[in-house]
Amino acid sequence: MPLPEKALIAEVRRLAGSSSRPRRHGSSPVVAAGIGAWITAGIGDDCAVLRLPPGHEILVTTDFTLEGIHFRREWHPPEVVGHRCLARGLSDIAAMGGEPLAAFLSLALPSDLPQTWVRRFMRGFVALGKKYDTPLAGGDTAESPNGILADIIVVGSVPKGKAVLRSGARPEDRIYVSGELGGSAAALMEMRARPKKKLNPRDYPRHFHPEPRIELGRILREKGLATAMIDLSDGLSTDLAHICEESGVGAEIESTAIPRAEVGKPAREVNLDLAVHGGEDYELLFTSPRGKRIPARIAGVPIAQIGHITRRPKIFLFNQRVGYELEPRGWEHFRQ
Amino acid sequence: MPLPEKALIAEVRRLAGSSSRPRRHGSSPVVAAGIGAWITAGIGDDCAVLRLPPGHEILVTTDFTLEGIHFRREWHPPEVVGHRCLARGLSDIAAMGGEPLAAFLSLALPSDLPQTWVRRFMRGFVALGKKYDTPLAGGDTAESPNGILADIIVVGSVPKGKAVLRSGARPEDRIYVSGELGGSAAALMEMRARPKKKLNPRDYPRHFHPEPRIELGRILREKGLATAMIDLSDGLSTDLAHICEESGVGAEIESTAIPRAEVGKPAREVNLDLAVHGGEDYELLFTSPRGKRIPARIAGVPIAQIGHITRRPKIFLFNQRVGYELEPRGWEHFRQ
Repeated sequence: MPLPEKALIAEVRRLAGSSSRPRRHGSSPVVAAGIGAWITAGIGDDCAVLRLPPGHEILVTTDFTLEGIHFRREWHPPEVVGHRCLARGLSDIAAMGGEPLAAFLSLALPSDLPQTWVRRFMRGFVALGKKYDTPLAGGDTAESPNGILADIIVVGSVPKGKAVLRSGARPEDRIYVSGELGGSAAALMEMRARPKKKLNPRDYPRHFHPEPRIELGRILREKGLATAMIDLSDGLSTDLAHICEESGVGAEIESTAIPRAEVGKPAREVNLDLAVHGGEDYELLFTSPRGKRIPARIAGVPIAQIGHITRRPKIFLFNQRVGYELEPRGWEHFRQ
Repeated sequence: MPLPEKALIAEVRRLAGSSSRPRRHGSSPVVAAGIGAWITAGIGDDCAVLRLPPGHEILVTTDFTLEGIHFRREWHPPEVVGHRCLARGLSDIAAMGGEPLAAFLSLALPSDLPQTWVRRFMRGFVALGKKYDTPLAGGDTAESPNGILADIIVVGSVPKGKAVLRSGARPEDRIYVSGELGGSAAALMEMRARPKKKLNPRDYPRHFHPEPRIELGRILREKGLATAMIDLSDGLSTDLAHICEESGVGAEIESTAIPRAEVGKPAREVNLDLAVHGGEDYELLFTSPRGKRIPARIAGVPIAQIGHITRRPKIFLFNQRVGYELEPRGWEHFRQ
């Protein structure tokens, strides 16, 4: 049974404390013990108090992780749920070319949830936070009437006016993606087809341990390589449509150029449909002016050119020189 | 039935748009149409981008509003749920002496929820945001497996080093509360006793339309009147215990000095138990050095001195010169 709220907060505070280490930025704000250098007051007050690096703007993103919608207890170990929960938020910061400052977690738990579940969830959460210098600085706890409910908030920073928006794509820009696509959706499909069979997380790393592309996003922003950027959470077809809509443009992409993930054991390549429509890969999709040289790897992550932006506001997928209009079919809630 | 996610976001964006108006602060950041002056990119990108007033720090707070835990559809009209949802976040900003910059809403809805519920919820939410210059700048939407789930995030600002924390209370400090207490819990008790009877929200304003004490909190901070502060969300006994614990002190309070709310029709005063332990009044509890003059009203809100801080780390309630130790019995989740 979960501890009463106060004890739960103390437990979360204790677990979060281990995520602290000196931040790479300069200056010396007053630091509460055991929390990041940009946090002046953390868990245990009405609000957290954060400092912003000089000359920066604030980034804010929020994302739900709901049992039965975003994960299932029988498919996803608690550490994986904690990791994926924070990864969703960090990935949004990456997509702006920003850097995370602190995370906030709203967590509602059913009264019969074993405390070990919470402990293991926090372990996955805190481990990822440590890797990306993102301490847990606050949040909320509540009893949940049904299932585990988490909402992750990540606050980040970006130099003033330098955030890479979805709206900056221009005709002739080249379209790129990082990593490989479809790996996360392939795991989901597999689990749906055989609900009783436990997948080995190591055979489907993009689903169970997605890596937010913080460093890649930062480098693209610093070097001025990206005109528009988004993270692939809903799937390529949907997320490319977001960029096109916000930028008032269209796109043509080549099916053969889309990098497809290898999953399972023995490893096999996912099909085109999963790579085009499957969500939750948390890779970056970005556009870059024609003629700008983009390295084949940035921060260790392979980058592939998959097409270009067009003036005509429609998206076409070309398959052996035959183009057909691409409908956004990525993950959408409330599908009717 | 709720609109598909994209349409829902468009609807929220449209409803949120009406909350915009010029902010009182100076400087002239690039403003996206229809959103607050501190927001440079809002709903529709991976993150919102906010500017921070010069010389300020960032405040962040998150609070769940869950159906069946924080409200019931049969007791609380949708506008009230929206109002109370945002009021929870704004009240935390008030308790730091801060000012809100922007709100973020994570909203998960059951697939059979009528769209009118969402519209009315947003109406209550946006109306309160307008009153306190707090535009909706982003969030998340999802399908809920069970019941309506909302998480409110408010980002605010406070001059560097000036946030009023819970930890600043010192022995001999006087203890004050704003407004009257117990009014919100009285409504809850009434509804629990007679679940079928609909209460008139006007007879229980503190429960149905709590007013976040933003202006009061700001004035107390500006004039250096408060050494420690918290908002009364869990109840006086619990929230005073939070201040005492964080400050390493104790307290003595006088039962006769505690201002009790009048509720119902005809109006009657709530009993002492509700005033001492009842939560969700969203008044401010603060301490001030002995000898510091505190006006009887600040920003139109009555202020009452209810006791003083002691060195001995225990809390006593005095009733006609007989003191007994006060246990925190305010609202706590996961009570066993």
